[in-house]
Amino acid sequence: MTQHKRERAKQERAIRTREQLLRAAAEVFDVSGYAGASINRILDRAELTAGAMYFHFKSKEDLARAVILEQATDVHFPRTEPGLQQVLDMTGHLATEIRTNTLLRAGIRLAVDTTEEGLREFAIYDYWVDQFRSELVEAHARGELHPFVDVTAAARLVVASFTGTQIMSQAASNWADLPALIADLWHCLLPAFAPTEVIGRLTIPNDRNGATG
Amino acid sequence: MTQHKRERAKQERAIRTREQLLRAAAEVFDVSGYAGASINRILDRAELTAGAMYFHFKSKEDLARAVILEQATDVHFPRTEPGLQQVLDMTGHLATEIRTNTLLRAGIRLAVDTTEEGLREFAIYDYWVDQFRSELVEAHARGELHPFVDVTAAARLVVASFTGTQIMSQAASNWADLPALIADLWHCLLPAFAPTEVIGRLTIPNDRNGATG
Repeated sequence: MTQHKRERAKQERAIRTREQLLRAAAEVFDVSGYAGASINRILDRAELTAGAMYFHFKSKEDLARAVILEQATDVHFPRTEPGLQQVLDMTGHLATEIRTNTLLRAGIRLAVDTTEEGLREFAIYDYWVDQFRSELVEAHARGELHPFVDVTAAARLVVASFTGTQIMSQAASNWADLPALIADLWHCLLPAFAPTEVIGRLTIPNDRNGATG
Repeated sequence: MTQHKRERAKQERAIRTREQLLRAAAEVFDVSGYAGASINRILDRAELTAGAMYFHFKSKEDLARAVILEQATDVHFPRTEPGLQQVLDMTGHLATEIRTNTLLRAGIRLAVDTTEEGLREFAIYDYWVDQFRSELVEAHARGELHPFVDVTAAARLVVASFTGTQIMSQAASNWADLPALIADLWHCLLPAFAPTEVIGRLTIPNDRNGATG
């Protein structure tokens, strides 16, 4: 093995170790919350030593922050039509993804957990507001929105109502009804954003009535 | 003291003890969350013995459930005009009350805490949905709403978007910006519920622009 190849193998191993730690941490936080999770449980699950961890993460808080901030990188949105349809599709995708994607679920749970001062990461809400805002700017450019819509306020409203709905859905059904609740939410919310003729052209994901608008 | 008076004094003492326990529990849950709170801290703060507690509450979980379910009884909404104006005023009142009302704040925090299976009380969201639904039914009867508005879905949307906004506001500013954020939310959301001429007659509480609609 050349020096270069050895270096590269080492780097790849470090990336895998970090990934392993992040997944194990997400699994433990997802089940036990922040307060209930221990470093030892995370290391057991990752099958790694404390030494391997401290190279990447200094503490449980450090791991939790990484899970919060990287929840989003693990979500790959299918691209359909840009603008308002993409906004609908993103929320529809998140609503189904939350049941199977542990990193997303743990990140959301930690971001909602208000007990730990150090975890009050407003950044993650800003991140999601920015994502939806970009698509709403596109929707505006395409003439899909009412002229009076404030795209920043609208993006905040999408994130806030999605967040609240997912909390209510977790309490009621462990997220089983989340896709249907998000569809109901859009039926109710869309008239604030777009005129009837635009709404009529959109497809609301997971719509129980199979109809739009 | 007659037998009757003695019985009555005993009952009044029991009510005060329960109240004291509930307030102390709310204060401890508010600061430490569910996992971080201990029965001993709650008893210390209430200046009561474990014996006094077990008469009213069997466990920490029992106390937490009572805090969640009774958060609402401690909120007294000012009654202005029924219908849509009352919906706005209720959210405006909650947005300011959350900073000073410990029982409300602790109840909301515990309801949002998803770590404890036993605390996933969907009932409290149902309670708030019902409160807003009643006022939206009134708004509908008064002809304030678009004819196509589904009042149940609209009530859920109000609760979900308020819940999400309060979580984002806590993370960002410890609720300092919540009243202003709820005003922004209404500017954005109202066109989904009511025609422009109705919106123009409403007063949005805590509006930073001092204007409506």
